[in-house]
Amino acid sequence: MALVNEHFLKLPNNYLFADIAKRVNRFKTTHKGVDVISLGIGDVTQPLCPAVVMAMHKAADEMGDAHCFRGYGPEHGYDFLREAILKNDFLPRGIHLDINEVFINDGAKSDTGNIQELIRWDNSIGVTDPIYPVYLDSNAMIGRAGVKDEQGRWSNVEYIPCNAENGFVPSLPKHRVDVVYLCYPNNPTGTVITKAELRKWVNYALKNDTLIFYDAAYEAYIQDDSIPHSIYEIKGARKCAIEFHSYSKTAGFTGVRCGYTIVPKDLTAATISGERIPLNPLWNRRQCTKFNGTSYISQRAAEAIYTPQGKEQVKATINYYMQNAAKMLQTFKELGMEVYGGENAPYIWARTPKGIESWKFFEELLHGAHVVCTPGVGFGPNGEGYVRFTAFGSHERTEEALERIKQWMK
Amino acid sequence: MALVNEHFLKLPNNYLFADIAKRVNRFKTTHKGVDVISLGIGDVTQPLCPAVVMAMHKAADEMGDAHCFRGYGPEHGYDFLREAILKNDFLPRGIHLDINEVFINDGAKSDTGNIQELIRWDNSIGVTDPIYPVYLDSNAMIGRAGVKDEQGRWSNVEYIPCNAENGFVPSLPKHRVDVVYLCYPNNPTGTVITKAELRKWVNYALKNDTLIFYDAAYEAYIQDDSIPHSIYEIKGARKCAIEFHSYSKTAGFTGVRCGYTIVPKDLTAATISGERIPLNPLWNRRQCTKFNGTSYISQRAAEAIYTPQGKEQVKATINYYMQNAAKMLQTFKELGMEVYGGENAPYIWARTPKGIESWKFFEELLHGAHVVCTPGVGFGPNGEGYVRFTAFGSHERTEEALERIKQWMK
Repeated sequence: MALVNEHFLKLPNNYLFADIAKRVNRFKTTHKGVDVISLGIGDVTQPLCPAVVMAMHKAADEMGDAHCFRGYGPEHGYDFLREAILKNDFLPRGIHLDINEVFINDGAKSDTGNIQELIRWDNSIGVTDPIYPVYLDSNAMIGRAGVKDEQGRWSNVEYIPCNAENGFVPSLPKHRVDVVYLCYPNNPTGTVITKAELRKWVNYALKNDTLIFYDAAYEAYIQDDSIPHSIYEIKGARKCAIEFHSYSKTAGFTGVRCGYTIVPKDLTAATISGERIPLNPLWNRRQCTKFNGTSYISQRAAEAIYTPQGKEQVKATINYYMQNAAKMLQTFKELGMEVYGGENAPYIWARTPKGIESWKFFEELLHGAHVVCTPGVGFGPNGEGYVRFTAFGSHERTEEALERIKQWMK
Repeated sequence: MALVNEHFLKLPNNYLFADIAKRVNRFKTTHKGVDVISLGIGDVTQPLCPAVVMAMHKAADEMGDAHCFRGYGPEHGYDFLREAILKNDFLPRGIHLDINEVFINDGAKSDTGNIQELIRWDNSIGVTDPIYPVYLDSNAMIGRAGVKDEQGRWSNVEYIPCNAENGFVPSLPKHRVDVVYLCYPNNPTGTVITKAELRKWVNYALKNDTLIFYDAAYEAYIQDDSIPHSIYEIKGARKCAIEFHSYSKTAGFTGVRCGYTIVPKDLTAATISGERIPLNPLWNRRQCTKFNGTSYISQRAAEAIYTPQGKEQVKATINYYMQNAAKMLQTFKELGMEVYGGENAPYIWARTPKGIESWKFFEELLHGAHVVCTPGVGFGPNGEGYVRFTAFGSHERTEEALERIKQWMK
């Protein structure tokens, strides 16, 4: 009898954003002709920049020409892109990485989901809460998260609350954990971590032999020069951290699919008998077996982001979105809402008025203002009582949404 | 202490093709200026067809235009491609699938590797041997394959020999297995399965509650109309089989990354208490959590294969490669070699002369004729004494390689 992986059955039926999409569609079906504006899912709306489009045309032509056609690329990605990453994303910050520490992927979701394959099924997990659902769902699928209780808490997970009460600064775990997921600038709260706070985590990890999975997918949105863009800005992080990057939000690649993961050569985990095993070759083995590299066209598109024109154009789009964030912050504050984030990240985290439940607020906002937000509880128990708004809309639609919210809240 | 997944340490250090690449590079370094021709890795050499290139240009332009830019696509792929697949790959063969049974992926390697996540870690596995290494390596990584002995056999795997002695027709497993991997047209042997033989497997699976993972990556190379292109041509297969397709060899997409997987809604596996769980929603949950869809440009490229021009152009390239296969078969036979496959597949499986070991023959051929083949033992114990040649070269290089082999074997 072929037996199913029963860990899947412990998962909530729907992935958060699929659930939201379903509710919005239901609303649209029952309210024909009503114009709904989404500030919900963190998806970009502005077109790819000209430098990227030009690079894709060039790559397409190459692939149609017998003299420069390319078949399988390296599983870890092409050196042209890995070199551009080292030179632009790390060297200017004084971070020296080896090219073989860079693994090009098809977006950070795949790698943040797959990375847990490298560790034993019974390692303990810590997460800041609220958090991007992929981290826990991917651990749950292999049984590492345990079982989910009625409040939506996994039994084998240490939740580290990040909320208004602690100023969104996560405390070090009360119980020692083998692995911890950090995401900064944070999805969903839009808050950031200072170098001093991040240093505490690196020191904790080194002292406790804890692995840090650091998701830096939103680093391009940092405006404040004192905020770290990479965990490797902290001494010792090469020995305890894997870092995930994505071009999805940096350059509007949500439909193009490209990002990268850094697995330092100094990073090890232990066997049960205490032998230290480097994780870099293990991740390489994983990728060579279950991945066949990222589309050549997508890799050339990513390379173009690092040209002088590409840099300027990508920056302009980020500024465009951050103008939305500024307007949203201003409007929400004027409305007397309690809001966080939005200064170094494209997300605004708002406390629901009178502490109503986040799904309830989601429905009220949808029916009352025809605007979609993301219920905070979808990101974990400590997200209850909050909702997330994204700054990824067009100026026109964002302003229209704000106007509607103003009218509705009056 | 963060503990490593020790199952990884049971794997051979190198993925087969990485190992071959290393040996070839070593040869090139020590034999400067020598021209080496590869008939080794199964990678295409001919450019993408004009219909595909045109579709990629159009998609790139759309992504640069605010009016038709697309962000995240559905994790399971766009309906324009799923519909083209149903209409072209299945309906003409009398196979009626639901659109939600089609999952677009970034190539068959990812999905044939990831599919094992759906089943319990202790299910038993059967494979025809020799076989594509990904099937077993991906099971080994989670501990399902057991441990590898000195002959390269995994302890928890039932090997079903396919060799000249049984005419490459796999017998049904001696011991019952929960899951079996079949690949037809076969990689590496280039042999095919008749409908009557495939029916035996479907009946076995239905009787024994066995899941079939059916890899149809090479179906576009079938020349003989009586050979099945899909396992769903066999009655009952919807209840026992998942099927993998790839555009890599069909349309030269090894660098573009697109394929698809069929998970029928009728397909179930059991919980330990005997409840039947449909696998279609489980696979959807897996993909929604750990995958963010295939590049929009790659999906538009794939759609173009199904246009009248695309069909004709893709067929022409397949014919081009099959002309290589025909020449290779002819030459090898003239040289008195024992060869198989190559008539409905782009691979030729050759017995090594005088039964010498396949890695030894690989080295002799490399040093003697400067031609690269793939040692059969890399595909499993029953591949020992054979090597694989691929028909994916250009006509000129393939003929040159054959000429060199002729001279060397004289």
